[in-house]
Amino acid sequence: MGDAGYGISVANTIQLTSANAAEPIEILDTTLRDGAQGEGISFSVQDKLAIARSLDELGVTWIEAGNPGSNPKDMEFFRLAETLDLKRSRLCAFGSTRKKGLSPAEDPFLKALLDASASAVVIFGKSWDLHVTEVLGVSLDENIAMIAETIQFLKDKGKTVLYDAEHFFDGWNANPDYALQTLRAAAESGADRLVLCDTNGGNFPETIAEGILAAKAFGNLGIHAHNDMDMASACSVAAVRAGCRHVQGTLLGFGERCGNAALAAIIPSLELKLNRACLPPGNLERLSEVSRRIAEIANVLAPDRMPYIGSHAFSHKAGMHADAILKIRHSFEHIDPSLVGNDRRFLMSEVGGRSAIAERAKKIDPAITKDHPVIADIAAKLKTLEAGGWQFESADGSFELLARRALGKYKPLFKIDAYRVVSEHPGDNAISCCYAWVKVWVDGKQEIAAAEGEGPVNALDRALRKALTPFFSNFDIEKVRLSDFKVRVIDGKDATAAKVRVLIESTDGVHTWSTVGVSEDIIEASRAALVDSIEYKLISVIERRFKGLF
Amino acid sequence: MGDAGYGISVANTIQLTSANAAEPIEILDTTLRDGAQGEGISFSVQDKLAIARSLDELGVTWIEAGNPGSNPKDMEFFRLAETLDLKRSRLCAFGSTRKKGLSPAEDPFLKALLDASASAVVIFGKSWDLHVTEVLGVSLDENIAMIAETIQFLKDKGKTVLYDAEHFFDGWNANPDYALQTLRAAAESGADRLVLCDTNGGNFPETIAEGILAAKAFGNLGIHAHNDMDMASACSVAAVRAGCRHVQGTLLGFGERCGNAALAAIIPSLELKLNRACLPPGNLERLSEVSRRIAEIANVLAPDRMPYIGSHAFSHKAGMHADAILKIRHSFEHIDPSLVGNDRRFLMSEVGGRSAIAERAKKIDPAITKDHPVIADIAAKLKTLEAGGWQFESADGSFELLARRALGKYKPLFKIDAYRVVSEHPGDNAISCCYAWVKVWVDGKQEIAAAEGEGPVNALDRALRKALTPFFSNFDIEKVRLSDFKVRVIDGKDATAAKVRVLIESTDGVHTWSTVGVSEDIIEASRAALVDSIEYKLISVIERRFKGLF
Repeated sequence: MGDAGYGISVANTIQLTSANAAEPIEILDTTLRDGAQGEGISFSVQDKLAIARSLDELGVTWIEAGNPGSNPKDMEFFRLAETLDLKRSRLCAFGSTRKKGLSPAEDPFLKALLDASASAVVIFGKSWDLHVTEVLGVSLDENIAMIAETIQFLKDKGKTVLYDAEHFFDGWNANPDYALQTLRAAAESGADRLVLCDTNGGNFPETIAEGILAAKAFGNLGIHAHNDMDMASACSVAAVRAGCRHVQGTLLGFGERCGNAALAAIIPSLELKLNRACLPPGNLERLSEVSRRIAEIANVLAPDRMPYIGSHAFSHKAGMHADAILKIRHSFEHIDPSLVGNDRRFLMSEVGGRSAIAERAKKIDPAITKDHPVIADIAAKLKTLEAGGWQFESADGSFELLARRALGKYKPLFKIDAYRVVSEHPGDNAISCCYAWVKVWVDGKQEIAAAEGEGPVNALDRALRKALTPFFSNFDIEKVRLSDFKVRVIDGKDATAAKVRVLIESTDGVHTWSTVGVSEDIIEASRAALVDSIEYKLISVIERRFKGLF
Repeated sequence: MGDAGYGISVANTIQLTSANAAEPIEILDTTLRDGAQGEGISFSVQDKLAIARSLDELGVTWIEAGNPGSNPKDMEFFRLAETLDLKRSRLCAFGSTRKKGLSPAEDPFLKALLDASASAVVIFGKSWDLHVTEVLGVSLDENIAMIAETIQFLKDKGKTVLYDAEHFFDGWNANPDYALQTLRAAAESGADRLVLCDTNGGNFPETIAEGILAAKAFGNLGIHAHNDMDMASACSVAAVRAGCRHVQGTLLGFGERCGNAALAAIIPSLELKLNRACLPPGNLERLSEVSRRIAEIANVLAPDRMPYIGSHAFSHKAGMHADAILKIRHSFEHIDPSLVGNDRRFLMSEVGGRSAIAERAKKIDPAITKDHPVIADIAAKLKTLEAGGWQFESADGSFELLARRALGKYKPLFKIDAYRVVSEHPGDNAISCCYAWVKVWVDGKQEIAAAEGEGPVNALDRALRKALTPFFSNFDIEKVRLSDFKVRVIDGKDATAAKVRVLIESTDGVHTWSTVGVSEDIIEASRAALVDSIEYKLISVIERRFKGLF
């Protein structure tokens, strides 16, 4: 533990499992296979390669990378994967037991599995009698033969075989004898792992633990849970406690319906609370970074509230909480955020307090203490602005600029002199368009630029960056991407004439920051948030490149 | 159960708990208090009233509505709450045990609690010795006295008192005797509920169950879990299984850090899988609708992957899954989605909620039945538009216009021919301004009008009404006020270039309706929603004044 204090609430838990505390856990990530079946998820082959590299960097044991028999993109992936040069992770190809009426050698899907550049395969088969007779349409005995022959065939060809017992727990609820028979067949045919799946995500952790205990005699067990009851993490941990040593999921919980078990939420609980190593030593600290990078590659917003790795996971808003944490770090945190590579954040809001402000101000000027009068000034300024509809709790970038102004650590890097934005809809068949021009002053020089955009804010954003680029050509502002844009009406009169608050989230691929603007004019509010975003980025780059000079 | 087939995997689970199967569970929703402490959540008083009405409609037992002593907005809420006329839920005001060194009668925060229009109060106190001595800075005995005297005082004043034992489980891990003493003090002082809190969200369900069993003797227990290990749902259900009959959380999981226990994920598991009633009979089917409405009010994206109520919760992407479901409904679903008011969706195929569409269509044309082909047409149209980012769930006005078009009960009352909106910021000391001009055709005649506005959308709104007024002088369009305006980015690329969805809520002082527009250009999306709003208003007036003529 990084901070002994956090250990207090954990002691009891560790004790409970001391019997098998030393045994490490194998992690199988199926972001590239089951994760790709999630709504809104679509990977290119290049995305898949980048994700595989990231998972290897994190150090998961297995990467389930796709189904080469059913998907040409996955076949292409396995062709290119030979160049991946993975350091720690092993790739698995995924497929099902042989088709009914074919021998394994005749089955084209199994042939594709053999051809894939992966020395391990994951084979799924049926454990729920209902699926055997009603979905596959084969007899219970034929299904057993399909499992046994498929595994035997792949083992004979030298593959490592991980067997996924689909719907095992539903099968075990419905016909426990048959469900166990399917496992026995897989074990006797040489399967290296027997992975029990809660495919529909409808079972409680208690049922999972009972199923694992019932199957324990058959071999080296694994768990594959889905989150349809919001219990996939609890089910996975319950399975480990009952004797599993192999956990399947997707790092961010991508997957069919409510998603697969989210490994980023499970791995830290196993490592930090149950003393079960999942990743190579030291790699847990990279969890937040790698998770966010994979969200970027998948082009989804990383879930803010996600346990351990979310940007809100260690955010404190209530002033009472912030005060307590500054006295005792673990008073409102169950672990030290640095253990998973995450950061503590104090949200600046009407319910926050001076301690939180001082904490942030110290990052700008280490000499500042809570009792310095400037902290009271910032608190008063925040109060006034919040009364006018501004909101800084989700706008760390704008807060930093505000604090810098108060601390005398601010210098305007550019100034917008004038701008105009036009949204033109000429009617009939003429094409609508949006354009903006903007005039800036930088370091005593003027620049004017114009740009079109897909909407008025996009046009303004483009014009502004275009105008600034000549002055800041090595500052990466072209890498900044606006990853979210939220608009909220903040007073109750006629809503189109009311003040609006625009919150912009920006990212340069590594860091993410948020800025805010308020105005009756949505364009002007967006302008304010855009300017803060670029200014914040410029200051970050200047700090990194030039700090030693002052 | 709607479909007996789904019962299969559930049978074992129900059996385990048959001992207390009949006892109902009390639900306390704290969206308005703990939920408001979540990052990015900020409610106006009107938002809070609307959420309280929705929670009452759902039928939760308790609504924890705020801390009147520490927050003027919450005090205002309780003043207005007297007009709420709740049918099923009881409001609670929230506060802490008395300050050290004051008697309860002297404590201004307790006075504010007494003054709040709520017959029940939730009082939190400290159970973790570390917090008592290091954060509060009082002796262990003084803390016990603070708990006992505060509860006694409020009971003497006739309040129902729910006692929240903050950090109970961490306290129980560190100093179990003391943690139990604090509960005993609360129980002996007359607390009506003892709610054990996993405030930091760092305990496993096993620890929760053990804590509950240890405290069972003291009275009527409740559970308050946080989601920092992704286990709040599992912890809450484990607590119920161990004997709790009161569950606290927030419907959508809003709350500090990773959020509170998400009631929308817990209630269905308790009702459908453990046979423990949480809501009035029949109300579970409204869960999805009410949850999504609260997300709208909070202006956050309803979490797509959220168990039970998320829009992806019953979405099937894999062809194999869809095929199996068409054979046997429960082959890849753990419950029938209609039980929680959700819909099954086959991605890239169609099957919609036709009954709901038919219900709405009947209001326009009473002759329409569910099986009329036009209902399928509307369902298909909805599906296409929703795939493009439109959303009609919160846009009743736009939905009515869409249905009228399909039913042949639509006639365009005006047409915008062309428009231009300019947001002008000339710089220096010149005044910024926004103006719009718009050209409309009404009944074969053309009108052009221009207007200034406080922002571009306001300018367009004014210009449009100005152009229409000569044609509709007795239609009250001048009374229409836009009461809310929400903007949401709906796809993941560069956010200022992404599609945005604008939702506008309009009111004429008597009725309220909502309309929607989608475009890359926020002005054009607003235009679409504004046009729908005015058209909907005109049709309503025409119906009222002229219907007898047809």
